[in-house]
Amino acid sequence: MKARREQEGAAAAAALGCDHDPWKECLEVAVQLARQAGQIIRKALTEEKQVSTKTSATDLVTETDHFVENLIVSALKEKFPSHRFIAEEATAAGSKCILNDSPTWIIDPVDGTCNFVHRFPTVAVSIGFAVNKELEFGVIYHCTEERLYTGRRGQGAYCNDKRLQVSNVTDISKALILTEIGPKRDPDTLKVFLSNMERLLKAQAHGVRVIGSATLALCHLASGAADAYYQFGLHCWDLAAATVIIREAGGVVMDTSGGPLDLMSCRVVAAGTQEMATFIAQEIQPIHYRRDDEN
Amino acid sequence: MKARREQEGAAAAAALGCDHDPWKECLEVAVQLARQAGQIIRKALTEEKQVSTKTSATDLVTETDHFVENLIVSALKEKFPSHRFIAEEATAAGSKCILNDSPTWIIDPVDGTCNFVHRFPTVAVSIGFAVNKELEFGVIYHCTEERLYTGRRGQGAYCNDKRLQVSNVTDISKALILTEIGPKRDPDTLKVFLSNMERLLKAQAHGVRVIGSATLALCHLASGAADAYYQFGLHCWDLAAATVIIREAGGVVMDTSGGPLDLMSCRVVAAGTQEMATFIAQEIQPIHYRRDDEN
Repeated sequence: MKARREQEGAAAAAALGCDHDPWKECLEVAVQLARQAGQIIRKALTEEKQVSTKTSATDLVTETDHFVENLIVSALKEKFPSHRFIAEEATAAGSKCILNDSPTWIIDPVDGTCNFVHRFPTVAVSIGFAVNKELEFGVIYHCTEERLYTGRRGQGAYCNDKRLQVSNVTDISKALILTEIGPKRDPDTLKVFLSNMERLLKAQAHGVRVIGSATLALCHLASGAADAYYQFGLHCWDLAAATVIIREAGGVVMDTSGGPLDLMSCRVVAAGTQEMATFIAQEIQPIHYRRDDEN
Repeated sequence: MKARREQEGAAAAAALGCDHDPWKECLEVAVQLARQAGQIIRKALTEEKQVSTKTSATDLVTETDHFVENLIVSALKEKFPSHRFIAEEATAAGSKCILNDSPTWIIDPVDGTCNFVHRFPTVAVSIGFAVNKELEFGVIYHCTEERLYTGRRGQGAYCNDKRLQVSNVTDISKALILTEIGPKRDPDTLKVFLSNMERLLKAQAHGVRVIGSATLALCHLASGAADAYYQFGLHCWDLAAATVIIREAGGVVMDTSGGPLDLMSCRVVAAGTQEMATFIAQEIQPIHYRRDDEN
């Protein structure tokens, strides 16, 4: 009911040409929760952890992932009872991962769990929000550096108060590239992962970086500190918030085939320019991962 | 003369069993200069840069590298006129890279130059100091996060005021590994670089990270945030300061052959434990780089 009212409100506001933002309160709450979650993660980073595995021996999860996800989701449910949720640990526990037209929160409570387990200080909270399958805003909080990245569709992207702008590099031989290894580690997957890196290094990319957090890598891209990102095996909760932030910083987020982004496809190419994104998409070979909504 | 007096002072102090540290002033000056250089680099990070190349199309240098090196070296020369210097950009310009018994400063003005060029915020100043070929102290300053890492032989290692302690992980399947690509990018070098990464991932390492700064990666190791580091193609100025910091944090720094570290050999394995270092050394295949002192 409330969701329908919000949608009607948005439509009415648009029709009137006024600048009322129907999702302003949602964004504000997301920012508060991301900061609150970030504080908890920052504290937990220094403590001993109970670590479990999920899809593979290197796909890790801790009590903090569960605790922070519950904290965020329960707070949002209380505030916005009609909204839907896609969240990493609920999905791992069997919840369906379906994006329909309802206002939907897409949440990664601790992105960079392997880093978190090792106290490697590159860890983030990621909260994305979509309505009618369109991403409306994204909030990513870098827990240890206390940097808040936000993007609101049509209104730009920011790191704290600084407006973000992607790089304008079009030539691979002037590019810094980011990627992540992904959870699958079977010999065939590793072979393609390494061969993709080899292709880009042979094409004289300045370098390839692997920092262990897809969302923070994508934030570096949004801020112009890197020129492209690609990955197979990331999830909609790694991508949702970052996609809005990159697009609002002027960047391109698309499928590794070169077509439009499919949030559930577990693969992405992002870049500061269309030329760079297209080059990467053409250069890399695919690694197959099951879709997020395939169950 | 002054150097000899300092050495005699150290010997006398040691003989008397008193705790006078003959290199205390040197360490203090290094800390001041690292902070000062860090401020300059932090400011320059956001500005447009003139980029040149050195040994390869991906081995970059900027005006800031030269400016900061000159600043540090000229300040140290004025203060300690009898000391010797090994510094990255002077060596690139043809200075010999020889470590003898004299008090010698070993300096990387901007470690992570490729990151610096791209405004990727993982950049450091590294200042090491050796006497009688023994590393006495190391100072590394993370320019954007304003973290100061110091290690003084026999007196521990610190990040700001926090004592550093390496991890105690001995098993690769519980380890986070750090490495860097290195400046050579010919097909044979890339093949071995990627095959080394493949071996460690197949051995079920939790992950491999490539952050673009050898000294900061080594600082992560010293702080226990990663369990091992290996690289071919780094230089004595990447290693000198970090080696003291890691050893004083309880870690192991050695040659990739498994033997003692050779600071001029352009290769290293470092780890929190001897077992982990030995495992990595046995697992990886060598990449040949010319020694720093081969000229």
